[in-house]
Amino acid sequence: MTAEHSDHQQPERYVVGVDFGTLSGRAVVVRVGDGAELGTAEHAYRHGVLDRELPDGAPLPPDWALQVPADYVDVLRHAVPEALARAGVRPEQVIGIGTDFTACTVLPVLSDGTPLCELPGLDKRPHAYVKLWRHHAAQRQADRINALATEREEPWLERYGGKISSEWEFAKALQLLEEDPELYDRMERWVEAADWIVWRLCGTYVRNACTAGYKGQYQDGSYPSREYLVALDPGFASFVTDKLDQPIAELGAPAGRLTAEAAAWTGLPEGITVCVGNVDAHVTAPAAVAVEPGQMVAIMGTSTCHVMSSDRLGTVSGMCGVVDGGILPGLWGYEAGQSGVGDIFAWFLRSSLPAEYAEHAKALGQSPHEYLTGLAARQRVGEHGLVALDWHSGNRSVLVDHDLSGVVVGLTLSTRPEEVYRALLEATAFGTRTIIEAFETAGVPVGELIIAGGLTKNALLMQIYADVTRRPLSVIDSAQGPALGAAMHAAVAAGAYPDIRAAAQAMGRARPAAHQPDPARAEAYDRLYAEYRLLHDHFGLGGNDVMHRLRALRAEASASS
Amino acid sequence: MTAEHSDHQQPERYVVGVDFGTLSGRAVVVRVGDGAELGTAEHAYRHGVLDRELPDGAPLPPDWALQVPADYVDVLRHAVPEALARAGVRPEQVIGIGTDFTACTVLPVLSDGTPLCELPGLDKRPHAYVKLWRHHAAQRQADRINALATEREEPWLERYGGKISSEWEFAKALQLLEEDPELYDRMERWVEAADWIVWRLCGTYVRNACTAGYKGQYQDGSYPSREYLVALDPGFASFVTDKLDQPIAELGAPAGRLTAEAAAWTGLPEGITVCVGNVDAHVTAPAAVAVEPGQMVAIMGTSTCHVMSSDRLGTVSGMCGVVDGGILPGLWGYEAGQSGVGDIFAWFLRSSLPAEYAEHAKALGQSPHEYLTGLAARQRVGEHGLVALDWHSGNRSVLVDHDLSGVVVGLTLSTRPEEVYRALLEATAFGTRTIIEAFETAGVPVGELIIAGGLTKNALLMQIYADVTRRPLSVIDSAQGPALGAAMHAAVAAGAYPDIRAAAQAMGRARPAAHQPDPARAEAYDRLYAEYRLLHDHFGLGGNDVMHRLRALRAEASASS
Repeated sequence: MTAEHSDHQQPERYVVGVDFGTLSGRAVVVRVGDGAELGTAEHAYRHGVLDRELPDGAPLPPDWALQVPADYVDVLRHAVPEALARAGVRPEQVIGIGTDFTACTVLPVLSDGTPLCELPGLDKRPHAYVKLWRHHAAQRQADRINALATEREEPWLERYGGKISSEWEFAKALQLLEEDPELYDRMERWVEAADWIVWRLCGTYVRNACTAGYKGQYQDGSYPSREYLVALDPGFASFVTDKLDQPIAELGAPAGRLTAEAAAWTGLPEGITVCVGNVDAHVTAPAAVAVEPGQMVAIMGTSTCHVMSSDRLGTVSGMCGVVDGGILPGLWGYEAGQSGVGDIFAWFLRSSLPAEYAEHAKALGQSPHEYLTGLAARQRVGEHGLVALDWHSGNRSVLVDHDLSGVVVGLTLSTRPEEVYRALLEATAFGTRTIIEAFETAGVPVGELIIAGGLTKNALLMQIYADVTRRPLSVIDSAQGPALGAAMHAAVAAGAYPDIRAAAQAMGRARPAAHQPDPARAEAYDRLYAEYRLLHDHFGLGGNDVMHRLRALRAEASASS
Repeated sequence: MTAEHSDHQQPERYVVGVDFGTLSGRAVVVRVGDGAELGTAEHAYRHGVLDRELPDGAPLPPDWALQVPADYVDVLRHAVPEALARAGVRPEQVIGIGTDFTACTVLPVLSDGTPLCELPGLDKRPHAYVKLWRHHAAQRQADRINALATEREEPWLERYGGKISSEWEFAKALQLLEEDPELYDRMERWVEAADWIVWRLCGTYVRNACTAGYKGQYQDGSYPSREYLVALDPGFASFVTDKLDQPIAELGAPAGRLTAEAAAWTGLPEGITVCVGNVDAHVTAPAAVAVEPGQMVAIMGTSTCHVMSSDRLGTVSGMCGVVDGGILPGLWGYEAGQSGVGDIFAWFLRSSLPAEYAEHAKALGQSPHEYLTGLAARQRVGEHGLVALDWHSGNRSVLVDHDLSGVVVGLTLSTRPEEVYRALLEATAFGTRTIIEAFETAGVPVGELIIAGGLTKNALLMQIYADVTRRPLSVIDSAQGPALGAAMHAAVAAGAYPDIRAAAQAMGRARPAAHQPDPARAEAYDRLYAEYRLLHDHFGLGGNDVMHRLRALRAEASASS
């Protein structure tokens, strides 16, 4: 497809979306009129994730995960021009650029946006770098934040299901303050990478409503109070006022115009619209045409993130957060998640696939996943006699307990690998149904389920989700969901559409109701789901706290070895 | 070793033991003086197990398992002479022959011992054959037997932990009556194969105290009453008097003298002593020098059978049975069991061993079991963070529920195969500890634990059992435990020893306290065992009846496919 010629009189207009992931960034050039993706390019971060050592080889403690901000700029310099070239689009046809980022991925900078790690002598200070979302070394700080907030009955706490994560802005900043107070003093802004990259593009620091709410505890117009911060740590008293607070813009708003410097990096025209920052999961919703209340999008990969907008505010048990305009301006945006999904299937293949199965798959030219899925697809619901709990990586929603672990019940001497595999697929579907029911119990209705992410290619898995949730399943029709969503926000910011809803209708890509629930299977799954919930509540809500005790015993045994 | 020369003045004396297993019989020639095993030979049953069709190809229903009695005689004709030849023993040096058999393995015969299946025209009638111990098609009959006995509060019921098995004499006979009443009428005796083979050897039908008690509900001098049998089925009224009742002899007593015909089969001298029949597990106890009250012998193979004598009579929850003189004359003989042990480890290798592991094992010249055991041995207790229930083949003792199934709790994305493997080894040890505690709770003390059977060769498994049960573990020092035990009983029957205790002291073979419990590991195992028991009681005693519901769902799903 080439963009040079069109049947309109005026030349086609395009937008660029850039998705900043965990290991690389990906740019896509999208036609404003219909969302067609004309060219993509990917650029891997030179330093990847720093989770063992700094670039100079200095070792990092366990649970750290850092990144180098210059790597993000390299994506702008390489992936954007390459995607443009592949699309065959002339730069002057591009009217805007939008981005999305992992979150909470956050860095300390000077007031002009210069990262501290780029200052002379500071490149040896771990706290000067970007803390990636999966930096988990601030759990101690998160625990204190939660305990104090619970004690003081802070009003924002219930907006996060009663507990904030060690991954978020306050926990990571408090760790910085406590472990490197001098660096904390030199830091002038504590900025989400989602906003920092936009700042690099347009020269203006605008905070986006999504990360401010989900990762910065910004609720009803304010952050956690100064009194609360003082109680946490006197040195933290001015954190919000001195380091964090910044004008907040709604998603899809323009943040500014492309600077000459950024134009040189990207090959795009100076002065085009730069959209405010956004987050990968959240930006996927409109890409999958989920713009109405009650359309839940599950982005299914190694883990699953559920995002949904609603006109109702409810306290959903175990949600990650609810934020006004957190996904779509004017609606309450909800986020929930399952901490292990594709990761569990991959673990099963890695740890439990017999040689004979690996050989059969190879002989058929299939991946082990395809082979097992084919065998699993022949089973009737319940024929394996199994039920599993999908907690191999803990439970994010609705239990918010990362010390839980996986269970399989019903094993017999005739149980085969494809049966356990299917039970694991089903367990993740039961996990999603549990989340949906938590929303509905809180008075927040869930209508349609829309799936995005890498696991959409497994048709059996999709059918299981339709049957288990008794909902028609729509599936995103793009392999670049986040980048497409970022590009759509750029189109809105550039004024090509009045709002993201209109952009989604024109540019979004989904196959509606691609998988229909089968009533007979759904009925059998109701019975299996009832078993899942019994086990879920027994092991997850204190009926038998065996998982925590096993983890403690494991830690003791490991420590003594 | 040759037997021709000895330093005694009179020539050495020998006994022959023959162990009739599920697929073959094994003969061993043993020196009376010290139990030395001088020669062994094995002979496979020509027809093996008939579980799919009769010898003429006529199909059998599910759950049937038959054998051909002539196959047993072939063992006498081949294995005994071969073992003699290998031992280099002259036949006239042999003073007796003893046998042991699987049980309850039972057949219909005429009053002269002729099996019905050998009568003209009856070889096409499935019920005319031997019903092997694992013939499981009489469950319906067993259910009725149990329900009626419970209703009538039959006094013998508590001697079997409250429930008799579908494998036993009454259930199998009732099935015969109901499904082939004409054949039932032609049957003159319903005889245990253990006694039938002795009958073949000496021409006399003597019933042994072991199977009469454990498999024939013979307690305190009588069988279930005529009134009970009438209530069960009027046609069954005379079952005991007409088909079953026969003089009972204690274990180790002489049944008679070797007939000319049997002497011709075996190459042994006519007229030597033939010992009364016995059962494989029970005869192993004295072979392992377990002749005192409280010495529990666990015969560990695909499943585990626990046998123990005691001077106390107690109602042990979930035991298979307690029989006066059932193992050793003059003591109460207890039997309990675990329905899956080695079978579970084999299932794990079959269904869950990754190709990479199979390759490493091969490269090291190890079996997969050895390789996994080596890796598992490096772990500290509790380091895997797992606890499993060993119910993949149901639970015999103490729950007596074959519809239970296996469980693994504590799985994480970093769980490795050798960790699950170790958790399964441990689960079977926890199962044995549960049985031991049931004995002690019933006021029947368990002192020492002695292990026999194929799994004794796994040193890690033995150590785990020592640590989990907090008992020094003795291990039998013979690969032919049952055949050795049968030979020892022959020595007693022939008068070489006053009783089996004396024979065991001279001829038995065990390494006493071969594995000592380690206090630190035992303490950690106490914590894991507490978790096992919580899960055991929750899933086994109605806290969550999920396993039965999963099995029902599985049956429905299979039926509809």
